[in-house]
Amino acid sequence: MTHQIKLLQNKLKQDNLDGLLVTKDANIAYLTDYDSRDSWLLISKRGSFFITDFRYIAEARNNLTGIDVIKIDGSIFGTVARLAKNLGIRKLGFDSKSLSYAEFKSIKIELVSGIDFISTFDFVETLREKKSQEEISRIKKAIKINMDVLRLAKSIVRPGLTEREVALRLEYFIKSKDADLAFDTIVASGPNSAMPHAPLTNRKLRTNEPVLIDIGVAFQGYRSDLTRTCFLGTIPVSFKRIYESVLASQEAAIKNISAGKQICDIDRIARNFLNERKLGKFFGHSLGHGVGRETHENPSISSRNRERLSSNMVFTVEPAVYLNGKFGIRIEDMVLVKKNKCEVLSGALDKSIKNWTNPSY
Amino acid sequence: MTHQIKLLQNKLKQDNLDGLLVTKDANIAYLTDYDSRDSWLLISKRGSFFITDFRYIAEARNNLTGIDVIKIDGSIFGTVARLAKNLGIRKLGFDSKSLSYAEFKSIKIELVSGIDFISTFDFVETLREKKSQEEISRIKKAIKINMDVLRLAKSIVRPGLTEREVALRLEYFIKSKDADLAFDTIVASGPNSAMPHAPLTNRKLRTNEPVLIDIGVAFQGYRSDLTRTCFLGTIPVSFKRIYESVLASQEAAIKNISAGKQICDIDRIARNFLNERKLGKFFGHSLGHGVGRETHENPSISSRNRERLSSNMVFTVEPAVYLNGKFGIRIEDMVLVKKNKCEVLSGALDKSIKNWTNPSY
Repeated sequence: MTHQIKLLQNKLKQDNLDGLLVTKDANIAYLTDYDSRDSWLLISKRGSFFITDFRYIAEARNNLTGIDVIKIDGSIFGTVARLAKNLGIRKLGFDSKSLSYAEFKSIKIELVSGIDFISTFDFVETLREKKSQEEISRIKKAIKINMDVLRLAKSIVRPGLTEREVALRLEYFIKSKDADLAFDTIVASGPNSAMPHAPLTNRKLRTNEPVLIDIGVAFQGYRSDLTRTCFLGTIPVSFKRIYESVLASQEAAIKNISAGKQICDIDRIARNFLNERKLGKFFGHSLGHGVGRETHENPSISSRNRERLSSNMVFTVEPAVYLNGKFGIRIEDMVLVKKNKCEVLSGALDKSIKNWTNPSY
Repeated sequence: MTHQIKLLQNKLKQDNLDGLLVTKDANIAYLTDYDSRDSWLLISKRGSFFITDFRYIAEARNNLTGIDVIKIDGSIFGTVARLAKNLGIRKLGFDSKSLSYAEFKSIKIELVSGIDFISTFDFVETLREKKSQEEISRIKKAIKINMDVLRLAKSIVRPGLTEREVALRLEYFIKSKDADLAFDTIVASGPNSAMPHAPLTNRKLRTNEPVLIDIGVAFQGYRSDLTRTCFLGTIPVSFKRIYESVLASQEAAIKNISAGKQICDIDRIARNFLNERKLGKFFGHSLGHGVGRETHENPSISSRNRERLSSNMVFTVEPAVYLNGKFGIRIEDMVLVKKNKCEVLSGALDKSIKNWTNPSY
């Protein structure tokens, strides 16, 4: 049994639940360190059960220790219901964010009377917020590859290449390092950079315009997510001014990150900084998000999150300015929360604005 | 407005619904031909509304015509509820397979009294089963790239390369054709091929063992999914015998595919063929699945599906034999259902068993 399953079993006891049906891949991966697909996990006081079908039985048995691998008999809903009954579960929690309404109804019908099927919210996600040393070590490995790929970008990004061509070369580098993409790569040139989540296009990069590169790495189950915005050609004063405001707003936020701080305050510091320079209205998303088993996970670093930071949380800090039809600038780093400060895990990666077509750079 | 939205509006009328909340990306893409993320679509008699946040507003407005793009105000749940009220909707359907229980509850609380929030199942998926000529044409383009990548595999697959290295080269080819991966590539060598959905490993391909390659292409929003199993070295008689049984079971099924046939019968024909050769117990999954906007969609070609085939359905036919710890063989093609027959869309791709290390091949 993993340390994470023990943590979960303690939390079940605290919340007066006999078991939890875990239906989200990332939560199952967190609890078992096995990257499962199309399968569910039932954790109870009397053991852990991985419920899967023919396609994954052999693979699951090879990868899971201390967890019973159960083959679906008939439907997965009936299999879950029979297992809950056999385990004597009376209060069975489920993850209301990942179980669909149809799945909820299908299980509910199969459960014998006397078993309560209880909605929980972020039950496992909350455990995942604070990373263990092993998790931090894996995240650092993903970030190392991510920094290398952004350094490589400097030697690749040139006018005439398409956004897709740049992305393809960067992605090939990641995959050649035994890693995977954490999400769809963004290489957004010129006006495309004003779309926060721009899809890749065949637009050619041009001289005298910016390129925004947002790329992520998945390595040993953990992820990274970093963004740099560069410029191809002589940097206009107006662009430089906005870039330096975004960078300074990020620095202001980072300086204030430490355990105990209220999360909304961190968002506010970056946002106020941009507001004072009349740029706040062009920064429409929240300041950041947790990163770990998923690219986007808790905590959300937003103006609405009144929770406090804890040591060993890992998240992005990514202020931005998007001028629709013109250009966008985003600078995204990842930080690890500590007692009186934070560590910028991607701190070794240069973020001064430079002309990437200048060979002396 | 797209043809697909008109089809949906007719179906709403038939089902006595005033509107449908569409919450699944593939369904939204089918209805709008726009590849959205993190957004919902509300279709009503009085118009179509794309509900999204700051990150996608500009992109959505550039891509959608005849559909109002609405920015989330507060929460997405409240925005949906207000929109339903303003449109005078009294019966609002939702997709019970893609809406989570938590989302269902959050919307339900926001809806004013007098609006019924009605669970639907496969409402859009059913429309998607029969492909239009435009959809078939895009699927054929994806299949063309998929066949080219499997032909390329012949010149790449050699003992000494790792599974990951082979996959990387094949994936690079796909991406260099302006296409994307439809799913995680399977390159399963030796005993790994006995796992139906084997994850990629750093295992090196060896002489005198099989390699199973299952790879898919996404192109212009539509997908393909093909599998070939090859052998590196002199093919043992026992392997050849099983391979030819799998191939013959596929041919037997394909010969029987035409509009009007009951789907479970098609699965049964392939399964019986393997059963008669004492191989049926090693074929644990269903015979195939629909392919279109998603890699796996309706119809499921399984022993439990009592529906009948219709013209213009597109699905895979993929019988297999998995001998745990030894090897697996799967042959997967895609077919298009016609009036009295089917067209094997991937029919141009060789499937005789050969020694791929033989340079004369």
